[in-house]
Amino acid sequence: MGPGRLHALIDGVFAIALTLLVLDLPKPAHSAQLVRDLLRAWPSYVAYLVSFITIGILWIEHHGMMSAVRGINRRFLERTLAFLLFISIIPWPTALAADYANQSVSEARATAVLYAATMLMMGLTFAWGWRYPAFPAGARRALLGGLVYLIAIAVAFLSPTASFAIDAIVAVYFAASRSRVPGLIVRPAPADDSG
Amino acid sequence: MGPGRLHALIDGVFAIALTLLVLDLPKPAHSAQLVRDLLRAWPSYVAYLVSFITIGILWIEHHGMMSAVRGINRRFLERTLAFLLFISIIPWPTALAADYANQSVSEARATAVLYAATMLMMGLTFAWGWRYPAFPAGARRALLGGLVYLIAIAVAFLSPTASFAIDAIVAVYFAASRSRVPGLIVRPAPADDSG
Amino acid sequence: MGPGRLHALIDGVFAIALTLLVLDLPKPAHSAQLVRDLLRAWPSYVAYLVSFITIGILWIEHHGMMSAVRGINRRFLERTLAFLLFISIIPWPTALAADYANQSVSEARATAVLYAATMLMMGLTFAWGWRYPAFPAGARRALLGGLVYLIAIAVAFLSPTASFAIDAIVAVYFAASRSRVPGLIVRPAPADDSG
Amino acid sequence: MGPGRLHALIDGVFAIALTLLVLDLPKPAHSAQLVRDLLRAWPSYVAYLVSFITIGILWIEHHGMMSAVRGINRRFLERTLAFLLFISIIPWPTALAADYANQSVSEARATAVLYAATMLMMGLTFAWGWRYPAFPAGARRALLGGLVYLIAIAVAFLSPTASFAIDAIVAVYFAASRSRVPGLIVRPAPADDSG
Repeated sequence: MGPGRLHALIDGVFAIALTLLVLDLPKPAHSAQLVRDLLRAWPSYVAYLVSFITIGILWIEHHGMMSAVRGINRRFLERTLAFLLFISIIPWPTALAADYANQSVSEARATAVLYAATMLMMGLTFAWGWRYPAFPAGARRALLGGLVYLIAIAVAFLSPTASFAIDAIVAVYFAASRSRVPGLIVRPAPADDSG
Repeated sequence: MGPGRLHALIDGVFAIALTLLVLDLPKPAHSAQLVRDLLRAWPSYVAYLVSFITIGILWIEHHGMMSAVRGINRRFLERTLAFLLFISIIPWPTALAADYANQSVSEARATAVLYAATMLMMGLTFAWGWRYPAFPAGARRALLGGLVYLIAIAVAFLSPTASFAIDAIVAVYFAASRSRVPGLIVRPAPADDSG
Repeated sequence: MGPGRLHALIDGVFAIALTLLVLDLPKPAHSAQLVRDLLRAWPSYVAYLVSFITIGILWIEHHGMMSAVRGINRRFLERTLAFLLFISIIPWPTALAADYANQSVSEARATAVLYAATMLMMGLTFAWGWRYPAFPAGARRALLGGLVYLIAIAVAFLSPTASFAIDAIVAVYFAASRSRVPGLIVRPAPADDSG
Repeated sequence: MGPGRLHALIDGVFAIALTLLVLDLPKPAHSAQLVRDLLRAWPSYVAYLVSFITIGILWIEHHGMMSAVRGINRRFLERTLAFLLFISIIPWPTALAADYANQSVSEARATAVLYAATMLMMGLTFAWGWRYPAFPAGARRALLGGLVYLIAIAVAFLSPTASFAIDAIVAVYFAASRSRVPGLIVRPAPADDSG
């Protein structure tokens, strides 16, 4: 089979993971101080934003990988499913991180480790997928993007906040950096992008 | 990459945002006065309807934009993700607006501001996307559609209900108006509808 | 625009509506009599099944309609969104019907009316959509399929159970009947379907 | 109609079923012992993993079936919907199995039977679908894959844990085995990957 239908499953999982994040935004019930309660839940918005950006950038990067793939065998499908497992699970550590950010340090640390470990596994399975089209630059970028979460895990034992800051920096860095992997600029836009 | 796969992610996020709205419709537990309890929750139905129409019209308009786009680069993908962030978040202010419509004015005001601010950001990111295909009429329409929510935010301080009325009027206006942006014009489909 | 991208939104909404039904299946917490509690929730399974079949058959029938459509204008998009509104809302009356089936008759009646009214509106918007490709047989079938729910609404005042039985019979009838609308048999299967 | 649009519905349901599993991962509220509480919920992770692998492998296998199908009639659509019903329902027995794994044996047994019975029905409807393209090897593989859950049901009366172990072994076995059904063989994609 060609890559066509695999795209449909991948795009579906990405779209749902992006959208399910909204279910964990704070909805205080019967609050008499709604503004204050919503403001106090600020870690939820940060966590939402970081996870949304991370999933979004991964969609773009994964897209690049798929356009480097010419044929698909069962082994590649299984690597893709392993990658999708960690994409689809992201709303879970995101929600826990938001819920426990304002609580004791030991609980916040647990969520920081869980969040970074999910991202680490996601990066490793992504790099594993990149090995399939035998495109070393892509595998390297994915592997580095994953291994940086090892630092976030280590830092979580010193400061959960600093650990989450690393997660956010990784998301922003990958959003801002221009990768050289294929598929990201296939044809020029019709007009000058003056935006 | 061509616009094809980007459509899949966009349509997925729109479809899920439209459908997740249903999760916030009232389901009173063990009510002995179900009809009364359901009728009392009327703001939920209004909020559902306004958000559904708004997301639906945006899908149509965004469609028009995509058909004006000839090639896609990473910068455009990132603008699209920014736009999708505000589409996917809509069920959250919708649920809060419905929950607090019948409560004190200060809480209803907070939800009116949150709702209109979400729509404002969505309109701004939409207009930002329109600048990519360099189609001024589209960017102007999206920008105006966004900026009108500034009025809704200001009005919320006088009357939350009037603010929500503006949100509803915007939705109905855009549903009724005929835009001149590309892609919306009737054209016969090719014989093969495998589009 | 051709029908291609509209399909993506429609199929997305149908797939999500079908799958969100699962969220309302009973999950008793800390039950010491799980089998009994799950068996007592039998109306949930009936409601799930009837709604799943109804949405599934509608997907097939809507498919037939789309293959009769040759071009799409904004008016048709808006009719389609109105139809999708009632498709995406189906999990809501389904959950209420299941929750209140075992409670007092007046509450069960309210949910029976709500369920049938949702289906009525869905049928009317479906028939409205059928008028676009000017295919009278399709519009007639959709209209009849919708109007039968008027009977279900009337019967609910005598017996909610009988009203739900009508809903179930409609679903099974449309599953079993062979419609003559286009698009349902476009090319013969390669081999004899001996199943 | 050709198989194109049916793929969209199928892939949508699979993607959503895969992703909805995340909603049932444990989110202890206000825990003062978060690590311990998360570790105690280990059956949730096992259940998540087994269901994710099972759904993922089924997507791959169903894919193989669809590539053997050359035309689609209404009867095949209905078999596909029956199969999708059991795919979309999987998060429900998964959540119950996770919730009751640590409770009394009689409750765990009920969830083990429910889980295996869902998988049995799914296997039977899958084999039923395979009969359509008249591909005996595929139908046989699907039927055997389904019937093995009869053993899991029987074993549940001796030991729920052993029953779940069978479910896990089936998932791993199908992930590891190389089926000979069509569509799974590597072939180079066409130059244009707009599939």
